[in-house]
Amino acid sequence: MPTTVHRAKVLAGNKKFMAAFGQKNAGALAKLYTKGGQLLPPGSEVVSGGAAIQAFWQGALDAGLVQATLDTVEVEGYRDTAIEVGRYTLRGADGQVADAGKYLVIWKVEGRSWKLHRDIWNSSPPSGPK
Amino acid sequence: MPTTVHRAKVLAGNKKFMAAFGQKNAGALAKLYTKGGQLLPPGSEVVSGGAAIQAFWQGALDAGLVQATLDTVEVEGYRDTAIEVGRYTLRGADGQVADAGKYLVIWKVEGRSWKLHRDIWNSSPPSGPK
Repeated sequence: MPTTVHRAKVLAGNKKFMAAFGQKNAGALAKLYTKGGQLLPPGSEVVSGGAAIQAFWQGALDAGLVQATLDTVEVEGYRDTAIEVGRYTLRGADGQVADAGKYLVIWKVEGRSWKLHRDIWNSSPPSGPK
Repeated sequence: MPTTVHRAKVLAGNKKFMAAFGQKNAGALAKLYTKGGQLLPPGSEVVSGGAAIQAFWQGALDAGLVQATLDTVEVEGYRDTAIEVGRYTLRGADGQVADAGKYLVIWKVEGRSWKLHRDIWNSSPPSGPK
């Protein structure tokens, strides 16, 4: 499978992620991860499995984040796996940037869907006023 | 190539990384990365290429870090690529833990060597006194 196909699957997955985030739907976010999915968030232990992933994103939404923007920088694909490097921006209700940085996601096919399997990110240095 | 082979290559690469770190040799650390290698460090922009990677690790060594411990948690391999999830501990001269957390490294074959290609990490919550 050429990497262009993997790239399309990743972009489609990110579109779902951004939509679910905008809808404040932590349950839908959690369903975008594989059954054995893990978050590796800054300042947190590893978050494993659907219930814990849902609780993590619920916490982020409850903290007032209203928008996640994911910008894919590169994708490499190997059969049932894709490696994505990207940039994220999280905004609060006032439209201000609450956090922005970079991430690396390992995507896997599960059933017929491409899902996030490993998801690690960290902040970039704050830039000027947004 | 079975994933056990990739795992052995990753473990061997990490052994070199830990040795170079312990020798405070930022040049040797930089040589463990591919020509197009990138660090994605917390609180930093992306660090690209040998000279910048060497400068980054020199800064960490100059800041007083004397030991890096890398513990591989999982490795998946696909031909010339391996995906590693692990845990790291960085210690200062007093033996105290300066930082500890988790990482995701994409390894690539370059020439006949396995090298770090993408390297992202972040801190876990501080635990009790060490």
